[in-house]
Amino acid sequence: MIKPFSYKDGIFSILDQRQLPHEEVWIACTTAERVADAIKTLAVRGAPAIGIAAAYGLALAAPLGRGALEEAAGILLRSRPTAVNLEWALRRVLAAVNSYPGDDLSRAVLLEAQEIWEEEIRANEAMATLGAGLFPDGRRYAVLTHCNAGSLATGGMGTAIGVIRRLHEQGKLERVYMDETRPLLQGARITAYEMKSDGIPATLITDNMAGWLMKLGRIDAVIVGADRIAKNLDAANKIGTYSLAVLADAHHIPFYIAAPKSTFDPYTATGEDIVIEERDEHEVRCFKGVPCAPDVPAFNPAFDVAPHELITAIITQEKIFTPGSSAGTGMS
Amino acid sequence: MIKPFSYKDGIFSILDQRQLPHEEVWIACTTAERVADAIKTLAVRGAPAIGIAAAYGLALAAPLGRGALEEAAGILLRSRPTAVNLEWALRRVLAAVNSYPGDDLSRAVLLEAQEIWEEEIRANEAMATLGAGLFPDGRRYAVLTHCNAGSLATGGMGTAIGVIRRLHEQGKLERVYMDETRPLLQGARITAYEMKSDGIPATLITDNMAGWLMKLGRIDAVIVGADRIAKNLDAANKIGTYSLAVLADAHHIPFYIAAPKSTFDPYTATGEDIVIEERDEHEVRCFKGVPCAPDVPAFNPAFDVAPHELITAIITQEKIFTPGSSAGTGMS
Repeated sequence: MIKPFSYKDGIFSILDQRQLPHEEVWIACTTAERVADAIKTLAVRGAPAIGIAAAYGLALAAPLGRGALEEAAGILLRSRPTAVNLEWALRRVLAAVNSYPGDDLSRAVLLEAQEIWEEEIRANEAMATLGAGLFPDGRRYAVLTHCNAGSLATGGMGTAIGVIRRLHEQGKLERVYMDETRPLLQGARITAYEMKSDGIPATLITDNMAGWLMKLGRIDAVIVGADRIAKNLDAANKIGTYSLAVLADAHHIPFYIAAPKSTFDPYTATGEDIVIEERDEHEVRCFKGVPCAPDVPAFNPAFDVAPHELITAIITQEKIFTPGSSAGTGMS
Repeated sequence: MIKPFSYKDGIFSILDQRQLPHEEVWIACTTAERVADAIKTLAVRGAPAIGIAAAYGLALAAPLGRGALEEAAGILLRSRPTAVNLEWALRRVLAAVNSYPGDDLSRAVLLEAQEIWEEEIRANEAMATLGAGLFPDGRRYAVLTHCNAGSLATGGMGTAIGVIRRLHEQGKLERVYMDETRPLLQGARITAYEMKSDGIPATLITDNMAGWLMKLGRIDAVIVGADRIAKNLDAANKIGTYSLAVLADAHHIPFYIAAPKSTFDPYTATGEDIVIEERDEHEVRCFKGVPCAPDVPAFNPAFDVAPHELITAIITQEKIFTPGSSAGTGMS
């Protein structure tokens, strides 16, 4: 399984996901600033992966002392606004430092970063099993996913893609349909790369085809990841997720989110309180640096929010929430 | 206003819309086969424009005699399956030949082709005025459109874009939001080009943002063209249209189609009977010829069908149909 990063001897190496699938370029980071830059520019993306990368960013700063560590935490926190895992991982590492029995700051931070990564791997495994259990045995399912909630977004087997991998292992997956996910094409570039590497039957579509596939009866369920889940279980995820939730509901198709507990934000009451990152308009006017539109204004919110009443279930590593228990069943 | 083609002295010149907005390349056609190829490869696209081009294709074949004319009609008819205007224009030219009082076949065909074009121009004007009348005076409206139903799709001021142009003239347009329209980006490339040329306030979005803009309350109406309208008023249009119709309905936003009578197909009972062209998977895996995905299977229906019950109104040059009179009002 592809890993989004690796750590050895003071070097945190990040696979540059902007170059996928055509090139595998690794960015060797020796400073927290370099990690923050990789997060900001989307060399590494996906809420759980951002959290892990931020923790390792702190591990790179720790040898410079406690002041450098706190400064690094501030820089990393500002690198992207929407994924709550970033803030969660930083808080957790700083808390671990405070409660660490010894005085080896570097070791304390590195151990906590490693533990965060290992926990995400275990969480992915648990989510995959719980999520696959939502699909009754005895038949195969066609599942639609959006963006990339796979290995490269999590460091493990994936959240949404973890469930899809488990369905495939259990002989319950007919096919995964992958939205290409404009503007940055994480579905076309990254999910397609992961599915092809794993030999999972997968078909690529443009984002605007999803509703028509539902109408044709070719989608049994939608499953995506999340970047921040509010207390009322509204879930922010890649732009396009909201439309999929509405379309799934209109077609009586279950709409699932798979996300670890680190994606739940206890400080945000509802989806309306989630800060949605707006990225450069250039991303909409271009594709992989190739201009496709004249120089007109563009709107580029990186995320949107699926309201809880349209989410049939949220799969975590511990339990399944059913905020919109009537969603996807025609009763909402 | 930009024209998609011109005719002079036996040469039918087609603006190659695949090269827009970055280059204005004209294809000089002297045979019907060349016109058919331009239709097939999307150098010229948009249902009304395809009809006009097909008629001029016959005009190029007519000097070779009646046999060549009928053969050309067959070749042109097979160039694209979904837009009914193609078949309509060919039938109309052949009927005109049969009823032409003189024996100058070439002149008969050319006159009818010219008349078809002129009628589309007049139809666009009439639709623009009727359509703008659906928007009450006294405020400005933000309108979402998909694909390109403008000058380059019609040879006139446009169908959906004609209505938008009229709203702008009348001071009733706040802004047009343009779906980029993957995979071939007619919105980003062609609609954005037309709106920029006309100085109409326009914002480009990716297709997956449309639902979120509706949720944010930033869209007052959706208006698109059509490629074929069945007897029950189901309407085939560019892939993504179906999703927009469902999303508009869910947000109580009116969903309008503007199309000339030549788009109505008296031989097709419902949307389920409309043949949906499937194009090369390569279009989905690439972006302006640049590969964006690994070599995975892709699905590429060029059109989908908005069911009549989700269409608030269909604007023609003569009257407004209201097949889904409760659509977009929360009552459907």
